[in-house]
Amino acid sequence: MFFEGSEKKVEVIVGPEHANLRQLPRSFWETLVSRCHATILSEIHNEQMDAYLLSESSLFVWNDRILMITCGVITLVDSVAYFIEQMGIEKVAMVSFQRKNEYQSHLQKSCFEEDMARLNALLPGKAFRLGHLDAHHNYLWHMDAPYQPLADDITTELLMYHISGDAARYLRSDSQTVEGIAELLQLHQLFPGFEFDQFLFEPYGYSMNGIKGDQYITMHITPQEETSYVSFETDIDIARECPQLLEHMVQILQPSSYDLITFNTEPQFEPAEPMCCVANQRQPLDCGYVLGFRHWLKRAEAVEPAVAM
Amino acid sequence: MFFEGSEKKVEVIVGPEHANLRQLPRSFWETLVSRCHATILSEIHNEQMDAYLLSESSLFVWNDRILMITCGVITLVDSVAYFIEQMGIEKVAMVSFQRKNEYQSHLQKSCFEEDMARLNALLPGKAFRLGHLDAHHNYLWHMDAPYQPLADDITTELLMYHISGDAARYLRSDSQTVEGIAELLQLHQLFPGFEFDQFLFEPYGYSMNGIKGDQYITMHITPQEETSYVSFETDIDIARECPQLLEHMVQILQPSSYDLITFNTEPQFEPAEPMCCVANQRQPLDCGYVLGFRHWLKRAEAVEPAVAM
Repeated sequence: MFFEGSEKKVEVIVGPEHANLRQLPRSFWETLVSRCHATILSEIHNEQMDAYLLSESSLFVWNDRILMITCGVITLVDSVAYFIEQMGIEKVAMVSFQRKNEYQSHLQKSCFEEDMARLNALLPGKAFRLGHLDAHHNYLWHMDAPYQPLADDITTELLMYHISGDAARYLRSDSQTVEGIAELLQLHQLFPGFEFDQFLFEPYGYSMNGIKGDQYITMHITPQEETSYVSFETDIDIARECPQLLEHMVQILQPSSYDLITFNTEPQFEPAEPMCCVANQRQPLDCGYVLGFRHWLKRAEAVEPAVAM
Repeated sequence: MFFEGSEKKVEVIVGPEHANLRQLPRSFWETLVSRCHATILSEIHNEQMDAYLLSESSLFVWNDRILMITCGVITLVDSVAYFIEQMGIEKVAMVSFQRKNEYQSHLQKSCFEEDMARLNALLPGKAFRLGHLDAHHNYLWHMDAPYQPLADDITTELLMYHISGDAARYLRSDSQTVEGIAELLQLHQLFPGFEFDQFLFEPYGYSMNGIKGDQYITMHITPQEETSYVSFETDIDIARECPQLLEHMVQILQPSSYDLITFNTEPQFEPAEPMCCVANQRQPLDCGYVLGFRHWLKRAEAVEPAVAM
């Protein structure tokens, strides 16, 4: 029972004169997510933003921007096309579309090159790949127009593969609960003042959105043994507000491989042996962000058997 | 201009009473390779074996076995099916089918699971995966029947990715020649007494078979910058006959990543920093071989830019 946890992500920012996205009717967001065959499972709201848990990941809406993350085999570009067509190109100030390497890319309905072609047909764009094709890698397409992000417009993504230990066992067990997972991850201690929306899938899988003011955290767990994947993403300034956060995540989940992807931030994170940093890239983008990509793998410490197919 | 250098490989051994494969007409081998849309480019022969360079890799024929290696998007199982159907199942003593991870698996015409289903429809089989799906990995399917390999039935495969340095520059240059490549790799010094058959593709790419008695070496080079791949394979007992061979290869080609795959041999090979061994697996197979898989990656030593798409 394979499920592709690895994600596609889009962020669209509209010009300040069009910053009324939260006034759009709920039916608009339902249609937006339905365009890529996702549905809204649950939602939370505060004075500054709306956060939807989707059947396959998350949608966040602020007045001036949306952030949508999807996993599985979803073609997120269909939702991007819908949003841009409905809004009108003239309202769009910045678009970035990101696609992580999949465990099983041949099962996807499109490859990045096809997504890129769709996006280029909508808007002028530029695209990059960080990481080698035969290792973890990350594609980014962005609208090719000058843009100046605000000082607090930063993003940190921690992608963890092959989780192990007690937490992994709990996340694969029948007895897990959303309260148990929140406790395991120490969500309330790490993110005081955040409101959480959590969802447990059958038979496995956990999604969480958290919001506080205009800040978000989101986490998606695909715990299955051979292809486990946990993504954590936030716009919190980790270095200032939660400096031990990344260490905490990898200590709890004990992944044997992980990536750190950053936009306009460089949180301190220096995993020690047996972790090896095998990729370290940084790319300034014409849309005003500096994209960072680092990939760690655990040094092999013992001879292991093969996996029977 | 992407070309998938990564390979599929099959070995079929017939029972000793049917060990007359070299008496089959040349048309048989032409048809065999045509079944997966390859053609014979060149060939060499000695008293014990025949070696064919193919449009996409190599075919070796001994009286009791064949070994066929293909790259690109070729469906090697079509040739396997043809061989087994023509021979008759009762003559087949052992079959192993191996498939390496591709750079772009979504461009392949089949996935391993589909190949495995085809093979299982021909013969009872077992299959394994060595290495994680999100890193270098290797699939092996073998016929599920007792088999006892001879003591000298050993194989060493060294797969090198992202070659760099002077040799890589030469292999990407317009001025390269087969003599120049043979000198670069020091083929004549390393393999005295071997007869070589070499082929240079347009605009890039090099294939080489070498034979001596019943021993073979084969090497295939896809030098293109972002997706370079060099495979080296032999049944020579490296530890005894050429103990520095693997070090030599990685010193010349300077790959940033490589795998060592072995059948019934464990040549001494301990790459030092900045190489990190990130997978080390060993699997005894019911068909009498012990399969080894090790994967190294180079530690990131400097911050690098992204690759423009």
